[in-house]
Amino acid sequence: MMKKNCVIGIDMGGTKISTALADLNGSVLSQCTIPTNAFEGEEAVLNRIISTIETVLKEAGKTPVNVKTIGIGSPGPLDSKNGIILTTPNLPFENFNLVEPIENKYNVPTYLDNDANVAAIGEYMLGEGRGTQNMLYVTVSTGIGGGAILDGKIYRGNTSNALEVGHMTIVQNGKRCNCGNYGCAEAHASGTAIGRQGREAVESGAETSLSNYSNVTSYEVFKEAEKGDRISKEILDESLNYLGICIANLVVVFDPEVIVIGGGVSKGGQIVFDKIREVVNTRCFKSMSESCRIVPAGLGADAGVLGAVALAIIESK
Amino acid sequence: MMKKNCVIGIDMGGTKISTALADLNGSVLSQCTIPTNAFEGEEAVLNRIISTIETVLKEAGKTPVNVKTIGIGSPGPLDSKNGIILTTPNLPFENFNLVEPIENKYNVPTYLDNDANVAAIGEYMLGEGRGTQNMLYVTVSTGIGGGAILDGKIYRGNTSNALEVGHMTIVQNGKRCNCGNYGCAEAHASGTAIGRQGREAVESGAETSLSNYSNVTSYEVFKEAEKGDRISKEILDESLNYLGICIANLVVVFDPEVIVIGGGVSKGGQIVFDKIREVVNTRCFKSMSESCRIVPAGLGADAGVLGAVALAIIESK
Repeated sequence: MMKKNCVIGIDMGGTKISTALADLNGSVLSQCTIPTNAFEGEEAVLNRIISTIETVLKEAGKTPVNVKTIGIGSPGPLDSKNGIILTTPNLPFENFNLVEPIENKYNVPTYLDNDANVAAIGEYMLGEGRGTQNMLYVTVSTGIGGGAILDGKIYRGNTSNALEVGHMTIVQNGKRCNCGNYGCAEAHASGTAIGRQGREAVESGAETSLSNYSNVTSYEVFKEAEKGDRISKEILDESLNYLGICIANLVVVFDPEVIVIGGGVSKGGQIVFDKIREVVNTRCFKSMSESCRIVPAGLGADAGVLGAVALAIIESK
Repeated sequence: MMKKNCVIGIDMGGTKISTALADLNGSVLSQCTIPTNAFEGEEAVLNRIISTIETVLKEAGKTPVNVKTIGIGSPGPLDSKNGIILTTPNLPFENFNLVEPIENKYNVPTYLDNDANVAAIGEYMLGEGRGTQNMLYVTVSTGIGGGAILDGKIYRGNTSNALEVGHMTIVQNGKRCNCGNYGCAEAHASGTAIGRQGREAVESGAETSLSNYSNVTSYEVFKEAEKGDRISKEILDESLNYLGICIANLVVVFDPEVIVIGGGVSKGGQIVFDKIREVVNTRCFKSMSESCRIVPAGLGADAGVLGAVALAIIESK
């Protein structure tokens, strides 16, 4: 009898599908990445996913019989209980049941979860959250999202939308957010917010080296701040202060062992983590701030697919 | 052989000790309340607790053999794992091990938890949280505290200090809080904060019916606001708006089924819940705000002791 000794993780993105076959410790045995070609529609994308599964099985010399579980990470919003991608800005899907056809084809239990939860599970099992029981993952890029492992289990909430940390109100009469509210953390401290403030500074005619760029994003603001540009430094200081308040609020509410921060803004380096730490130390009880590590995500470019592998492993238990 | 068919709940307060013996469904069979007389010291208080246990056993015709578990609620901070009250502003205790002597005397497993967690467990088992899986309890009185039942279990966090919801920063450069931080929800929206603003209005010479009182607390502000006093209404509107932001932030982070609000301010009635609901509806995703009930605590004057009973029952399982 063949042993079920591996899992498959699938990272569904707007531009690419990345699939890996791994053992039950999360060591990748084979991996494959192809373009999503989302414009071809739901059925075509499903077939492309299946082709990646075939590829990783073949490369590792395995068959579906060896596979214990399959984990899929996808942008949300989605219905993880029923395995359905509801709608997503970057994929032309609507109420697309991704789990059922894969489960039926391979007769392997298949699990779907959103990007942030999958990243949280990945960090918990394979990254910076290893060995902890209470861990938060916060991603700061276009938006600000999050996932939580509480008492060793992923926490999803009543409607599977928990940890919308970017939509905590940080500034009572603050900037308008895409969600319609004013003063969300996301409207003040995301990569998008940092880039927007850079462009506004250029447009207002402020004296800043950002005006040397035709297109200013958060990347340029970080770069010019590091070179000493005063305006860029002010923008970063304010935005990272708001990010710090967001993280400090998570510390007092969750009392976690570690907060892992991923996404583009986390790649801004030491300045990001120094500022967050400063705000957390100022605003939280000493016992809680001291016992909580705040660290950059440990999984690199493969975080998405490793997270999907981790989802498969955690669900196999 | 006698059956272990009941539990004992003990509510330790600064002024009184309330103890109840209940069946495993939480129905109280006997109850007893005596002054704490905290000034007499730790040993004396322990003996008074034991006297209440003897009383409720005797009154219900039970012996320690019938008791499955004992639950104790106490003001924090405390070390619930080891059953130790660390220090508390209203009780002259320091590193007082309350659990060990009781456990040893009666040979019954005994559990200690803080006020807010015990109230949360009480509402979850016997009050407004019945039948839910994800429930938050928020108490708004002198301070603002909370407890969470997540996926059917009490969530305590890494250092047993989770749900310090009153110390979320709501106003970046806001009022100084007792904790040392500026702009905590507690500094802007607790009963203490409402009363302080009332007194400040009187002292500033504002035209307000609050000046008819020699001592203004949140109670008088609610009372005069109801009678139409403009200043009292303004104070309440602002404070309840901040309380609403605090609750809205909990909705987006926890995606709960219900938030139960207790404490003195929750007795302010409909105006409190109308304002919170308005802010939550404005600031949260519709799907999350619509699926979350926000209701006053269901357990009345006996909430403390019923919560301790519920703690005993939940730990007996």
